[in-house]
Amino acid sequence: MKISIIGVGLIGGSIALKLREKGIANFIYGIDNNDKHLNEALDLKIIDAKVDLEYGIKNSDLIIVAIPVDGARKILPDVLDLISDDQTVMDAGSTKAGIVNAVKNHPKRSRFVAFHPMWGTENSGPKSAIAESFSGKAGVICNKEESAQDALDLVEKIIENLDMHKIYMNAEDHDIHTAYISHISHITSYALANTVLEKEREEETIFQLASSGFSSTVRLAKSHPEMWVPIFKQNKENVLDVLNEHISQLRKFKAALEKENYEYLEELIKNANKIRGILDK
Amino acid sequence: MKISIIGVGLIGGSIALKLREKGIANFIYGIDNNDKHLNEALDLKIIDAKVDLEYGIKNSDLIIVAIPVDGARKILPDVLDLISDDQTVMDAGSTKAGIVNAVKNHPKRSRFVAFHPMWGTENSGPKSAIAESFSGKAGVICNKEESAQDALDLVEKIIENLDMHKIYMNAEDHDIHTAYISHISHITSYALANTVLEKEREEETIFQLASSGFSSTVRLAKSHPEMWVPIFKQNKENVLDVLNEHISQLRKFKAALEKENYEYLEELIKNANKIRGILDK
Repeated sequence: MKISIIGVGLIGGSIALKLREKGIANFIYGIDNNDKHLNEALDLKIIDAKVDLEYGIKNSDLIIVAIPVDGARKILPDVLDLISDDQTVMDAGSTKAGIVNAVKNHPKRSRFVAFHPMWGTENSGPKSAIAESFSGKAGVICNKEESAQDALDLVEKIIENLDMHKIYMNAEDHDIHTAYISHISHITSYALANTVLEKEREEETIFQLASSGFSSTVRLAKSHPEMWVPIFKQNKENVLDVLNEHISQLRKFKAALEKENYEYLEELIKNANKIRGILDK
Repeated sequence: MKISIIGVGLIGGSIALKLREKGIANFIYGIDNNDKHLNEALDLKIIDAKVDLEYGIKNSDLIIVAIPVDGARKILPDVLDLISDDQTVMDAGSTKAGIVNAVKNHPKRSRFVAFHPMWGTENSGPKSAIAESFSGKAGVICNKEESAQDALDLVEKIIENLDMHKIYMNAEDHDIHTAYISHISHITSYALANTVLEKEREEETIFQLASSGFSSTVRLAKSHPEMWVPIFKQNKENVLDVLNEHISQLRKFKAALEKENYEYLEELIKNANKIRGILDK
């Protein structure tokens, strides 16, 4: 199968590496505005050739859009314009409602499958791509009833070859759940980094004292704005909803400390501890 | 050297394992209110014998207090009452001002060295102990001028054998820095867990969708209240100060989203990204 990857970054690159390893992709075209990334992807054998959008689409069985969600939303109608009925398009964006809405009434809508692999790191670019990254993680397909059966079959085969487990979800529900489970983590991590940078002017002290706990909580704060501003923008309402809840949860800790109500503090912590039972199933 | 460990949990157990491995400790007494932990520590060869406080202290060159900081604060004067001038006492508590104040005027103050190893996990108990846990991390000694030179020499030797790098700090400064770098991370993580548990009623969805990013941000929320309530209590003022700053940092993200000011959002994220340069030195 010939595949075009639009956006040869962390996600597109990791998908390419894995699909080649599995023998599913025998030729991979790379399409990217960033020529440095394209050359790196060639060097790393992530792609076989760098091509322009039209050429890549014309010559591929499957087109994978793996660029930030604002770009994906814009480019998807153009991509669908260029394909025929035996080609399939999938994306890999972290928000889904905006993307499925952007192609909702497109005559080729059924050739598109909305996909979100639940994996990422704070790094970006083809050099960060890892073939094994998706193993064991969830691969979410949204609004599958809007896709043609053969397009869906192909994307399910891709997800299986990424060693992910498949989950089906409505795009709106997806965006609510990911606001809770992924997007808010990034905001707290960014805000935590800004808190420390604001309060702790002695950088050397941060570096010397930073424990594994701090590093793990603040890790996501290294994530780039190019990817995350569009996610927050497209999922604004849900993210605001969870952010308001999060601020009110922090205020409970504040109140417990201010009132020296340590029984309440213990209760808040014990409630949070329940996450252990859910995550460590 | 004979060592008594008061509190054979994650920290006490990890110290014991490492010091035995290095050949520094040739006999380790375990002292703990929790008899189950003592038996586990015996089984795991963390300690050689379980004894009572008086027996352990009388027969040890070095006494290491590794219990929650409220307990440490209470027990330290009693421990110092029982020792002679050729014995040394150290603690391993995460807050330091309360502890050094509790022994400030004790006639044996100079036999005590205030210590904080900058390492921990969300787990507890001797079964979680790991010999290599401290390697490369910071070992902080506070108010070293209040300790006798030979006691300080011994604790420095212990820190070197834990493969930690030594940092010297005033107890008040220590508590300010750890509020920024460690304590606030725990509060944000607890609050994040509570946010998700409040908003996301479908536990199965959390489990299925949870990405590595979420797991890493929420990891500290598994930490037990027995350890953390006393830390927040003893470092209340500093923690409140940082918590207020953190809430105001989160409000900036909220304002940026509400006002759809995505340039400001990008600016906030770019500022947070600076943590990469500091942590990845």
